[in-house]
Amino acid sequence: MALDPALYLLPVGISDAPVDTVIPPRNLEVASQIRHFIVENVRTARRWLRRCDPAYPIEECEFYELNRHTRPEDVSGFLAPLRRGVPVGVMSEAGCPAVADPGADVVAIAQREGMKVVPLVGPSSILMSLMGSGFNGQGFAFHGYLPVEPSLKASALRELENESSRRDMTQIFIETPYRNDKTVALMASTLRPDTMMCVACDITDPLRQEIVSLPASKWRGRAGSFDKRPAIFLIYRRPMRPVKTSDRKK
Amino acid sequence: MALDPALYLLPVGISDAPVDTVIPPRNLEVASQIRHFIVENVRTARRWLRRCDPAYPIEECEFYELNRHTRPEDVSGFLAPLRRGVPVGVMSEAGCPAVADPGADVVAIAQREGMKVVPLVGPSSILMSLMGSGFNGQGFAFHGYLPVEPSLKASALRELENESSRRDMTQIFIETPYRNDKTVALMASTLRPDTMMCVACDITDPLRQEIVSLPASKWRGRAGSFDKRPAIFLIYRRPMRPVKTSDRKK
Repeated sequence: MALDPALYLLPVGISDAPVDTVIPPRNLEVASQIRHFIVENVRTARRWLRRCDPAYPIEECEFYELNRHTRPEDVSGFLAPLRRGVPVGVMSEAGCPAVADPGADVVAIAQREGMKVVPLVGPSSILMSLMGSGFNGQGFAFHGYLPVEPSLKASALRELENESSRRDMTQIFIETPYRNDKTVALMASTLRPDTMMCVACDITDPLRQEIVSLPASKWRGRAGSFDKRPAIFLIYRRPMRPVKTSDRKK
Repeated sequence: MALDPALYLLPVGISDAPVDTVIPPRNLEVASQIRHFIVENVRTARRWLRRCDPAYPIEECEFYELNRHTRPEDVSGFLAPLRRGVPVGVMSEAGCPAVADPGADVVAIAQREGMKVVPLVGPSSILMSLMGSGFNGQGFAFHGYLPVEPSLKASALRELENESSRRDMTQIFIETPYRNDKTVALMASTLRPDTMMCVACDITDPLRQEIVSLPASKWRGRAGSFDKRPAIFLIYRRPMRPVKTSDRKK
């Protein structure tokens, strides 16, 4: 059955785990019918398509690169196939496109022109770390990267801690992988001893996966072992008194 | 191969779409080896297992119900099988367990006891709506339900709008399905005309899916058609000036 003309948001694996551990079969069917891809990186996109199907006809495909080097005025042109009724796919380097990558820009253009946008299911370190943390999932916030400079990062961490407690919301952020251990140490020394912190590392890799939630006091002095591994960080501090829904919005 | 003893967080479909459109094959392999399930609702959990595999040996399974009627002192006992090395699964009514449901309580206990927790991939209306909206995915917050009373809800909406613009973060919330159309109308009349709002409805249902992002002004007077359908709402207002990462934490 021919694929509806739409912008398909195709998640990509976030580890070397087999494709069928993180991708529903339907995604592969959809990808097999697409020949126009908007991708964060052409090389990794080709490699991913070959992992999904070693016989994927890469040579029949057009790839349009959308990343921080792309000129904003070029983005709209990537949707030209869809304007004439041909489906287009979007893939980021890893995980779900348009979440923590430039893919949202092209989705916004598609929405403005009334095109159909179809997000597909796949691995998200943000969501999976939240599930595995045991922290509050009824309210949460993702902040991307914190400031690099240690004193600014420490004050950002204290603000996240206060906000978690004030609004009863889990606070989530990411870090450049070679700074993971320094960040764990800074969190352990900056946060109050009974504030909970979770480090989720290699989330979808069955052999290397670690998702550990402990009070900050118990993280102090733990030898670092997260450097150069994909990790995500969560902070949760239970409110002193129950938070009303309307307080979340303050 | 025998399954590692761990707490497996098993996502459940969020529509009647075929299982293989939203669930990776690995999840079915994992579920087939589990006989102890902590579930939000026993009846829907059994039905889901039969949808995954019509021959699933339901009669060999133990189900422990974890929802707002569960006594807090009973929750820890649900992990008894895992304490003797037998894998346990967690399933919510729909979507990813421990995100917007009581499952996080049992994950927190497992974390406290140092048990292995394994989140699996599946559909999340929060994440998929964010992907499809075209709004900022580099920073976002999920707030659960807003207050029911219209004037309180309107002021919560204005606070989300201000927060979106101040921190450059997409703001996400849910609503009881029979109030969807009223909520769309209230958003359209409360938000500033050029603030973007997205309604994402039946996200994983290929026939009924609608994900529409428009400025609030264009939502005014649109006839309601979202009542009684699973929907999620997003607000995004672009900042007047670029937001530094450190401002996100304020």
